[in-house]
Amino acid sequence: MLETAGRGLYVFTDRIVRWVGQSGFSDGLLTLFIQHTSASLVVQENYDPDVQADLERFFARLVKDGDPMFAHSLEGPDDMPAHVRAALTQTQLSVPLRQGQLALGTWQGIYLYEHRFAPQRRKIVMHLIGE
Amino acid sequence: MLETAGRGLYVFTDRIVRWVGQSGFSDGLLTLFIQHTSASLVVQENYDPDVQADLERFFARLVKDGDPMFAHSLEGPDDMPAHVRAALTQTQLSVPLRQGQLALGTWQGIYLYEHRFAPQRRKIVMHLIGE
Amino acid sequence: MLETAGRGLYVFTDRIVRWVGQSGFSDGLLTLFIQHTSASLVVQENYDPDVQADLERFFARLVKDGDPMFAHSLEGPDDMPAHVRAALTQTQLSVPLRQGQLALGTWQGIYLYEHRFAPQRRKIVMHLIGE
Repeated sequence: MLETAGRGLYVFTDRIVRWVGQSGFSDGLLTLFIQHTSASLVVQENYDPDVQADLERFFARLVKDGDPMFAHSLEGPDDMPAHVRAALTQTQLSVPLRQGQLALGTWQGIYLYEHRFAPQRRKIVMHLIGE
Repeated sequence: MLETAGRGLYVFTDRIVRWVGQSGFSDGLLTLFIQHTSASLVVQENYDPDVQADLERFFARLVKDGDPMFAHSLEGPDDMPAHVRAALTQTQLSVPLRQGQLALGTWQGIYLYEHRFAPQRRKIVMHLIGE
Repeated sequence: MLETAGRGLYVFTDRIVRWVGQSGFSDGLLTLFIQHTSASLVVQENYDPDVQADLERFFARLVKDGDPMFAHSLEGPDDMPAHVRAALTQTQLSVPLRQGQLALGTWQGIYLYEHRFAPQRRKIVMHLIGE
């Protein structure tokens, strides 16, 4: 469960690494699955925070909030754009595990991408298979 | 094998749930892999049909059919746009399985997204690993 | 490790097939994970090279190099666009393996999509689980 404080990227690599460490697995495949269609998963650079701000700027321009083209706007101007952004990014991400370590690159972080304006509670299933 | 009747989203969560139920697996990882590059997979809201129509409207505006920029148009104005749409969405989707249940969120449905105008027969490989 | 010679798509299906063949696995799940956030993975048509050129044209128009909106431009005008392109495509791809064969469709190829202008050395983790 991750609590978000409005639209944007939330890194949670540390929590995943801790959970994998506690699992006792050394080799296998970690799968993350987010149980929502208005938030998603992305792997992005974990160094310069400008990357996250720029990514958000790009998506905000690409998928206009309140676009009159969208019929589905029950929950507000960010409702349908959130679904489109989720379709353009990932609902699921798998990462190989080797000798107890996730095979992430040096500059890779795993992010929850919240697409709604309001704070939300997001559920991400973490699943390990291997030994 | 799924038969499509032209461009749009086709929900097939029920077929997947049935297949997983018949497999006898209780814990593991389900992987769906679509063997085409002009149709793809998306997880979207399964409640309001407007979401599907809006998503299609968005993609139709983003990737123009018959765009003169595209050289690859052998099979018609929807040929190259179908490949671009597939690149922007998913060819593969994995969903964890726990106690015999797919770990989908309440409002999540699994869709085949057909990007060609004409009806097609689409092959999706369903693969389970676990116990 | 794949060496790229600038932006574009690089097919490497053959290398994957060879590696899977040497593994001795007959049934399972292959996962590819690219350890970078400025290059990504896509499954695309392996027949007409125009598809690759058109896909690149589409992305070049969608995510403008040197867009003044981007603050993150330390490494040049292609720096932030590379991250955006990676977010819109895949960092990870899994393909089921059956009877020693990857379950790819007839026209599907697996590509590394290099988003930087300059040549790079890209690491892709290949992971198999099964028997």
